[in-house]
Parts: sequence; C-alpha cells; structure tokens
Amino acid sequence: MTTNDPSTTPQSVTGPRINKGLVIVNTGTGKGKTTAAMGVMFRAWGRGMNVIMMQFIKHSTANFGEQRAAKKLGITMKAMGDGFTWRSKDLDQSAELAKAHWEDCKTIISSNEYDLLILDEFTYPMHYGWVDVDEVIETLKSKPEMLHIIITGRNAPEKLVDYADLVTDMTLVKHPYKEGIKAQPGIEF
Amino acid sequence: MTTNDPSTTPQSVTGPRINKGLVIVNTGTGKGKTTAAMGVMFRAWGRGMNVIMMQFIKHSTANFGEQRAAKKLGITMKAMGDGFTWRSKDLDQSAELAKAHWEDCKTIISSNEYDLLILDEFTYPMHYGWVDVDEVIETLKSKPEMLHIIITGRNAPEKLVDYADLVTDMTLVKHPYKEGIKAQPGIEF
Repeated sequence: MTTNDPSTTPQSVTGPRINKGLVIVNTGTGKGKTTAAMGVMFRAWGRGMNVIMMQFIKHSTANFGEQRAAKKLGITMKAMGDGFTWRSKDLDQSAELAKAHWEDCKTIISSNEYDLLILDEFTYPMHYGWVDVDEVIETLKSKPEMLHIIITGRNAPEKLVDYADLVTDMTLVKHPYKEGIKAQPGIEF
Repeated sequence: MTTNDPSTTPQSVTGPRINKGLVIVNTGTGKGKTTAAMGVMFRAWGRGMNVIMMQFIKHSTANFGEQRAAKKLGITMKAMGDGFTWRSKDLDQSAELAKAHWEDCKTIISSNEYDLLILDEFTYPMHYGWVDVDEVIETLKSKPEMLHIIITGRNAPEKLVDYADLVTDMTLVKHPYKEGIKAQPGIEF
C-alpha cells in the first residue's frame, strides 16, 4: 500500500532517480481536476516556489474562492480575455482569444521566471482545434527543465497524454447536483 | 459540456436547490485525492471559511509543502500522534492511535466551529476495521448542517460511498515513478 508520504514512494524503482519539472495532466469527467491543481499550487507556494495559473475558461471577472485566496497570497491567476463561456455566441472570437492566451503562456514558459505553471482547462482549446496539440508538445519539450506544468480539463488529447509524465483521470462516482443540491461556495467554486 | 464555472452548472436540475454541507469522498488508486482536498481548503480559505485538516497517515513531524503553506496561512493541520506509517511494527498501537485521532475529529465536528473539515487518508482506518464505518456514518448524519467534510484515501468503504454526496475516483493513467523520476518537492509533497 502506498500513501502520499514520500517515505513510502515505491521502493522497487532502481537506477538513477531524476529531478525534473513534470508535465502533469488532470483529465476525466469527474470533479477535482482544477481543484487538485490548486492543491499543488498551495503546496508549491508553501515551499516558496513561484507559481502562476492561466485560466482558459473562467471569466476574467471571476471572484470565486480560488481567485480570492490567490489574491490574498499574491499568486497571479490570469483568466482569458473576454470571459469566455461555452454559451459564447461567437466561437470564432473565442478561438482567437484562446490563441492569444496561449501566446501569453508561451511567453511565461520561456521567461524561466516560474517553478509551476497551471494551464487550467487548457484541454478544451486543444480539443476544439483552436490550439494545435503538436505545437503545445513542442513548447513543452523546450520548456525550462525544472518548470512543472499542470494541464487540466476533460478530453485531454491522446498525444498530450502520451507525452505527459503524470496523468490522472478523475471519474465521477456520485454527484450532488443530481439530488438537487446546488454548487456550494468555497467548496466547488 | 460543463466547466468548473458555476454559471454552467447543469441547467436540467429542477425543483428547490438545497444549501447544505457536503460529505465528499476522494478515493481511487490515482494521485490527487489529498491534493484536491487541499485545493478545496485553499478555495474555502479564500472565502474566509474556517477550515481544519486532520491527517490519519502523515507523520506528526511532517514538514512538506502543505504543512508549510498551512502554517503560513494559520490553518490547523493535525497529524496522528505517532507518525504512523504502514511500516509500523506495532499495528495494534497504530489502531489505538487512529481511534484516538477519530475521537478528536468527533469533538471537532460537534464543536460547530468549522466550515470545512478534511479527514485525510481516513479511509484506511475504516478499511482496516480500526474505526467502525457505521459509527462514522452516524457521526456524519449528526454533523452541523453546513459543515462540509472531505474524506480521502483508497478503498473507501461502500457504505461511506453510498452515504456521501459527492464521490470522485482518481484513476492513475500514467505515473513518472515508473520511469525513474522521483517525487518532486512542492508538487507531490
């Protein structure tokens, strides 16, 4: 049985143990993809690491629990320009905004100023073909060696899953919405 | 397609929407169970909610990223007495310590002083029969109405899954340990 205690990480690994920035993908239809990324952000911040979160879906005016906490901690959390939602009437415009946001992310990656970058809900622009997966993987290949990058969202492209170091699929077992319980502030947003 | 944006929560739910403290279970063999709970903690803290984390596996002397972050934020994160691990030679003693830690949790629950309680890796004491699942469910039934409780760990007992409001199974798709990459500080602990 393994636990999250690093003293119990698998003992069977032989050979050199590598220190490197990981490419992590949290995907699947369940809850916890963004939330787990924020947990890592919290942990990394606890170690004094320089962290930043780029959000591809959230409204730029969002002021949920995570934005409030990030603000209190001085963590940059930057949403895409227009407050894109899937209800957006002009998907062409959303595609352009996603591309522009990705360009900003590339600048952040190449700046080598951060230890952890979260690309929140970045799978959607790839899934919809607005951002080219091959280009994303090329960018990941040339990232600073110790930079950790977490990508969240459903429908992670297979090429990305193949390239990533750590991939977790969050599966919904049971959800309270089904029983009429609404999303709870501080818990789900 | 749903996103984490609450403006896009399912529109098909009809009838009254209930505000209540949720019982959330993060289980499965993948990464992200504790980490997602910490993400919720971060989010709740951002909203000024009173949060506490009781850990059933971690060493009481642990000083990982999460402990450091919690300390900086003034969040209580209390580990079980002895620095229990699965290597412990005296499992009887560990069982006693787990029971005592659960008694402290019950006091915390009935105190009605918190908005969010995380019972980290609490599935193990239940799975091993040290803490009775029926008693846990009775305690959950009588918790303060608005208290949210998150239970993490593998092998969540079926009765608990049945009782919980929100259950997510984290499934490992790919793990870097397999390729000789060691656990990275700030990311995995």
